[in-house]
Amino acid sequence: MGTSALTTTGKQTMSDVHQVLTDDRDHVFHSWSAQAEITPLPVAGAEGCWFWDYDDNRYLDLASQVVNLNLGHAHPRLVAAITQQAERLCTIAPSFANDVRGRLARLIAERAPGDLDKVFFTNGGTEAIEHAVRMARQHTGRLKVLSAYRSYHGATSGSITLTGEPRRWPNEPGIPGVVHFFGPYLYRSPFHSSSEAEECQRALAHLDDVVRMEGPQTVAAILLETVVGGNGVLIPPDGYLAGVREICDRHGILLICDEVLAGFGRTGEWFAVNAWQVVPDLITFAKGVNSGYVPLGGVVLSQRVAATFAHRPYPGGLTYSGHPLACAAGVASIEVFEETNLLERVRRLGQEVVRPALTELAERHPVVGEVRGRGLMWAIELVRDRQTRQPLVPFAATGAQAEPMTRLTAACRANGVWPFTAMNRLHLLPPLVIGDDELALGIKAIDDALSTVDTEVAA
Amino acid sequence: MGTSALTTTGKQTMSDVHQVLTDDRDHVFHSWSAQAEITPLPVAGAEGCWFWDYDDNRYLDLASQVVNLNLGHAHPRLVAAITQQAERLCTIAPSFANDVRGRLARLIAERAPGDLDKVFFTNGGTEAIEHAVRMARQHTGRLKVLSAYRSYHGATSGSITLTGEPRRWPNEPGIPGVVHFFGPYLYRSPFHSSSEAEECQRALAHLDDVVRMEGPQTVAAILLETVVGGNGVLIPPDGYLAGVREICDRHGILLICDEVLAGFGRTGEWFAVNAWQVVPDLITFAKGVNSGYVPLGGVVLSQRVAATFAHRPYPGGLTYSGHPLACAAGVASIEVFEETNLLERVRRLGQEVVRPALTELAERHPVVGEVRGRGLMWAIELVRDRQTRQPLVPFAATGAQAEPMTRLTAACRANGVWPFTAMNRLHLLPPLVIGDDELALGIKAIDDALSTVDTEVAA
Repeated sequence: MGTSALTTTGKQTMSDVHQVLTDDRDHVFHSWSAQAEITPLPVAGAEGCWFWDYDDNRYLDLASQVVNLNLGHAHPRLVAAITQQAERLCTIAPSFANDVRGRLARLIAERAPGDLDKVFFTNGGTEAIEHAVRMARQHTGRLKVLSAYRSYHGATSGSITLTGEPRRWPNEPGIPGVVHFFGPYLYRSPFHSSSEAEECQRALAHLDDVVRMEGPQTVAAILLETVVGGNGVLIPPDGYLAGVREICDRHGILLICDEVLAGFGRTGEWFAVNAWQVVPDLITFAKGVNSGYVPLGGVVLSQRVAATFAHRPYPGGLTYSGHPLACAAGVASIEVFEETNLLERVRRLGQEVVRPALTELAERHPVVGEVRGRGLMWAIELVRDRQTRQPLVPFAATGAQAEPMTRLTAACRANGVWPFTAMNRLHLLPPLVIGDDELALGIKAIDDALSTVDTEVAA
Repeated sequence: MGTSALTTTGKQTMSDVHQVLTDDRDHVFHSWSAQAEITPLPVAGAEGCWFWDYDDNRYLDLASQVVNLNLGHAHPRLVAAITQQAERLCTIAPSFANDVRGRLARLIAERAPGDLDKVFFTNGGTEAIEHAVRMARQHTGRLKVLSAYRSYHGATSGSITLTGEPRRWPNEPGIPGVVHFFGPYLYRSPFHSSSEAEECQRALAHLDDVVRMEGPQTVAAILLETVVGGNGVLIPPDGYLAGVREICDRHGILLICDEVLAGFGRTGEWFAVNAWQVVPDLITFAKGVNSGYVPLGGVVLSQRVAATFAHRPYPGGLTYSGHPLACAAGVASIEVFEETNLLERVRRLGQEVVRPALTELAERHPVVGEVRGRGLMWAIELVRDRQTRQPLVPFAATGAQAEPMTRLTAACRANGVWPFTAMNRLHLLPPLVIGDDELALGIKAIDDALSTVDTEVAA
């Protein structure tokens, strides 16, 4: 194709919007989309918890982009760290030792539970899962990996096979040796439980059954999201993670906790698993580690797993592993967390602001079946009938079937907030730096928007 | 684990080296390595084609890090672009339209062959391969993908299965539906050919045979590195790529050209395939697109493949797709290429400097079996015997068996150059901005280092 004149990067003006839209429509292929059926909003700028288009429509971001932007847009400390590191050293091969790569690895290791103190850096969450599973298979010499239904682990061949929701379906057949099990979900209990304690006990009995039926000596790892993210913000009942750990220990199976969404403050902990004092063998992370300012993910390994590869080469790697620019943003992010006591703030906002506000809102809106969450990771589950708990839209609904959710999303946007919706749920996942006033404003906008779907509830 | 005091990022001094090494040893898990058997060089700084350690040992980088750093370290235009973009907008979700994402997609589309004019951005090469294969499978409704022995495509589950070299072995079983074939390699012809034309014709006949035996209607794609990179810089003979294209067309199979190494100037072309006027259906890229300053890769799609996903959702995606900071570095990189006529320079250096210099060097060193390459992508293949072509070290040698190559690498480093070695080959893959003097210096250092292994040649 011909080569057009180059445009020098410069300050944007409103008149650029035509070019932005043309370039996007003509040349950008978008994730998870029917390309002719989307109309991507052209984003002109962003700061903190807000972004805006070229008509200066401003949106409060209740999705943190893709549950990514824990410190919000344009955080001056992260921008400064990137600028400084860009002038020093953007990239270096993974075989070298590098100051900022080592420093971030140490800071992460110090915040990880137990003896998890080595970090293998990747570009993002899906690669972290791919490598964590590889480490577990190599360490145990076993093939099978058990992962949960109602989970998302990424979009490369291994991660999408391990995923337990509909995005896996068109990508089958996947990698060999993956078996799915049901995790605890009291509101729609797969085990017909009537209390959290019962759900915990039955979910563990189920997992134990699956392990026995699959053959414990064939299972390399059990992989789960510590707190299930995009599939419903499912908080594990107390005792569940400890029970899974016990099943793993009994059979020499490794426990992999996926904290790509939940890690780095989303639940008010460095790692969500810390709240239950359980030590997995491997933790995967990405996103919140540096708010996605530079792509970065990774695996934190226990000493025991790392030792397997002391004298035997680890059969995996990537060009950008431990990318200095990405790591510099990660170091700065941890510094900001510490200096602003951000974890404490997230716990307080979750417990003292979001929980009471959403509980009160649930009482007023018949369409709300349940609200659940912790920290700044919440789901509002919507139903047509509170007794039967019939979901507002069917599982994996698309098109006309999903219309009430489409309407709800549109209503939120019209109210100036950008929500995260999935299936029959609206999630509240704002940047962790959201102000009290902004949070109140966001919840008010959701409150108003919910009225547009209350009408779906059977009289 | 406990939390240590935070160190503010600042200017490095020599006294930092102890901390760098300690952090690395204690907390960084390295790619493709037995962790206790490596001693990573601590890199203190880098500029252009050079990097140095804390003792001010300086190395001329003949590997471009991992064939990544096409514009060298600390290029002021790339640094400026990153700094400017960091202040504007580091990241935005893939569902939005973004100016710099669209601009880079357009610039790439304009430089891609034929009707390849949509870009799906990823974080790097392995994800690009995963998605290209997915697109081909979805588009054709077929499962199988044929890829070449002596290839590397990445380290996630799909890409490592598609890889045709030993790094695949410990990662099996992989994804279903992958079949390997032999590509042209006249120096060690799998087809007993005695000329390039014969090798071309026989390689095509072999591929045609494999397709027929596998069942053409079951094959979604043929995947190959346009120029095989880490497995030997194997330049396809004239007519080979056109012949593969013809086999694909005959059976409705898509052609995927992997240009993660070869793209963006390495061979003196925007895309290596352009030199043979062949139009694949999908091209994968990464690395050189922005010299790895920010992790970035992607797939360029033909209109026909993209149209499959006009009204049917593409079942894949990632949080960081079209990352603005990464794209800004890509836009600046293309601008630098244009303004400095870099492609022309690479072609000239390859043809007028490297080819004659390596040819002359080959005559003097009995250990050199063959030199081959184009642009700034070269391999020196080393043998114990020029007649039998017995490799200097066996295929997939490790440890003591690989000693002559270890010795050669050490000699290069002692001579102040950092080489790229693989199996029985030394590759010359410097940054494309390497000066004539630097290139001469690098080749002289290789020349001297080769003397240390000439002794391996049978008298």
